[in-house]
Amino acid sequence: MGLKEFKKTINIEEALNILFKNIQIKDLEVEEVYLKDGLNRVLSDDIIAPMNIPSFNKSAVDGYAVIAEDTFGASQTNPCVLTIVGSVSMGKVPDLQIKRLEAVEVTTGSIIPNGANAVVMIEYTKKIDEKKIEVYSSVAPNENISRIGEDIKKGDIVLKKGTRLKPPHLGVLASLGFTKVSVFRKPKVAVLSTGDELIEIGTPIEMGKTIDVNRLIISLMVEELGGEVIDLGIAPDNIDVIKSKLKKGLMNADIVVISGGTSVSKIDLVPEAINQIGKPGVIVHGISIRPAMPTGIAIVNGKPIFMLSGYPVAAIIGFNLFVKPLILRLLFTQDEPKPIVKCRVLRRIPHSTGLRTFVRVFVKKVGEEYVVEPLRITGSGLLTSMTKANGILIIPENVEGYEVGDLVDVTLIGPVMEA
Amino acid sequence: MGLKEFKKTINIEEALNILFKNIQIKDLEVEEVYLKDGLNRVLSDDIIAPMNIPSFNKSAVDGYAVIAEDTFGASQTNPCVLTIVGSVSMGKVPDLQIKRLEAVEVTTGSIIPNGANAVVMIEYTKKIDEKKIEVYSSVAPNENISRIGEDIKKGDIVLKKGTRLKPPHLGVLASLGFTKVSVFRKPKVAVLSTGDELIEIGTPIEMGKTIDVNRLIISLMVEELGGEVIDLGIAPDNIDVIKSKLKKGLMNADIVVISGGTSVSKIDLVPEAINQIGKPGVIVHGISIRPAMPTGIAIVNGKPIFMLSGYPVAAIIGFNLFVKPLILRLLFTQDEPKPIVKCRVLRRIPHSTGLRTFVRVFVKKVGEEYVVEPLRITGSGLLTSMTKANGILIIPENVEGYEVGDLVDVTLIGPVMEA
Repeated sequence: MGLKEFKKTINIEEALNILFKNIQIKDLEVEEVYLKDGLNRVLSDDIIAPMNIPSFNKSAVDGYAVIAEDTFGASQTNPCVLTIVGSVSMGKVPDLQIKRLEAVEVTTGSIIPNGANAVVMIEYTKKIDEKKIEVYSSVAPNENISRIGEDIKKGDIVLKKGTRLKPPHLGVLASLGFTKVSVFRKPKVAVLSTGDELIEIGTPIEMGKTIDVNRLIISLMVEELGGEVIDLGIAPDNIDVIKSKLKKGLMNADIVVISGGTSVSKIDLVPEAINQIGKPGVIVHGISIRPAMPTGIAIVNGKPIFMLSGYPVAAIIGFNLFVKPLILRLLFTQDEPKPIVKCRVLRRIPHSTGLRTFVRVFVKKVGEEYVVEPLRITGSGLLTSMTKANGILIIPENVEGYEVGDLVDVTLIGPVMEA
Repeated sequence: MGLKEFKKTINIEEALNILFKNIQIKDLEVEEVYLKDGLNRVLSDDIIAPMNIPSFNKSAVDGYAVIAEDTFGASQTNPCVLTIVGSVSMGKVPDLQIKRLEAVEVTTGSIIPNGANAVVMIEYTKKIDEKKIEVYSSVAPNENISRIGEDIKKGDIVLKKGTRLKPPHLGVLASLGFTKVSVFRKPKVAVLSTGDELIEIGTPIEMGKTIDVNRLIISLMVEELGGEVIDLGIAPDNIDVIKSKLKKGLMNADIVVISGGTSVSKIDLVPEAINQIGKPGVIVHGISIRPAMPTGIAIVNGKPIFMLSGYPVAAIIGFNLFVKPLILRLLFTQDEPKPIVKCRVLRRIPHSTGLRTFVRVFVKKVGEEYVVEPLRITGSGLLTSMTKANGILIIPENVEGYEVGDLVDVTLIGPVMEA
């Protein structure tokens, strides 16, 4: 696929602008899930704390609950002596009222008994008999007490709408007494492959046929992002079948992704099918990138259809550039941070300007330094370039390649070995 | 928990060394899963390609399959003229034999007909009548042909044992005709919480009690890493109950994780329970880190037991430092690359030397620069410090803190906003 066929290619940012201008994003429906099923789901609402955490003043250390003022001036050489009037077991509510020069034994997490306003750590005390301790250090009021609401105040917004739930978030929800959480339902993504040459995974291999790997790859990428897949199967290079499958996708999904059917000979088949089923139809076709130049975006009845290359690598790159941002936007959430490392170029990386190029590279660590070289590959169709690579180097449009010794930013997609 | 109680704390690397010296790692059992269920599972064996990819010589472009020698010397001003003797549809096996000065129409992915050894891109040709084309550019033998085995050669190792399967890996397996893949079974991790104060998620909240969030958090972290959880519930501070639950864990799991029961007053309860059930018992107790200093490691009957703090943040850090590397080792795989960014310190971060400290920090992007400040928190028990933070700053043992303006490496744990 040369630049020639896409005279009006536009850059990624322009394409995304056109996409987001042409669709109305509204909140997805909400569903409730148990906390244990909430991992990687996205909060549909701010979470307001229904209670304080801690919900009671509790000891932050093991020691003695005291009246701080009794310890003022206490030191190693001048201890104060307090009378032990009881102890508070973990999880038990004390019915004690502490008075001046009294102390109550507590452990980390114990409720502070009434009247006490500080805890002396056990290390700074010594039992002199069954009922008496010496205290060798003064404590200030509130010292060593985890106060009511210290971690979370009732009424505070503790987690924000759009938060992707990780174990600590679900832990916070549990600590607030929640058993379920409201999340956006999974965005539904209908996935279709086209091409007379395609056969299903598991079909006996036939000469001239190609196993449809794109549908599997795209479906798994959708699932990784927290989407739900609607499988539209394979359509042959037949406009009526493509139209009927696209319609089914538009009816049932939030997003339709179709791969294949963008080679020159078939270049009009998928766009034509789309343009026949609704308005405005294709709004972007041809992006100034390599690979994945033939990527296209269409809108029909307000719903987006993404046209990805039939080449797996180009389909993956097109998906990450265009489908992924929309899924994240529908979920009102943000991408997770990417591991990017500064690498020294080991082998010259030529580049023809005008295109933003996504080079599959191999990164190694030599001593403290990361070094990088491009994979030796002959075509963009080679899926193993994605499994042999552990990094992607993005070369901007205006850069004429990199020389040996240049420093470049590489996004890591797999583990890095130490050489 | 002061340093005092753990006079013999050791550093993380020493603790990991002791752990790995004391257990025998052997391959987990193998199970077969369908490719669509293989995401994030780990390959139990090298994958040897059972076939070539492509499995036939195919066109890499749309155009005409030709005998390269016929095009030598062809140019815009001096085209060569070839006779079209047929076309090859996608997915069809041609029964054509091309002869000198003949051409066959092909599309990207078509089988190359017998006799042809190159493809001229359609852009460099012009149909002059139904049966004739002019060719304006020469092609070298093999040009624009994806050759048999170009991506994968039959017999090659395409994926290595220990690979964590991502969408492209599963795509490669599909393209090779696989429908299932052999992966290591999930390592089984038994998870137990201890403490008289703990109540189950979903139980009405009672004064003095604390909802057990550690079991949820640890279980989700195990699942994220590809492990299977065996839930041992909550044990009160009773040595017999703890022993009986630990035994159950050791019988059914590869790893046992117990959290809580490491405060000073209970400091001997869990280790004592462990030491009573088998040898060698506790081999590490007390790590020179903050938080999570009371973390411990034990071995009983060859199986590891990890003792994590009852404080959620410390439990998370202890898990990541000790349990995670073991799960990865059992799976024969490596950690995914971490997003680490260089940040400028906005607010002084004091540090007492001697401990490696894991500071929860907030990172923002200001222009092209990342800036960082520590969260204002009062205790290590505050789980919200993990949900408010989007980064972890590790301060080494010998560093006396960071001053405003210092550059530090921060591991991102959540999205970064642009300020």
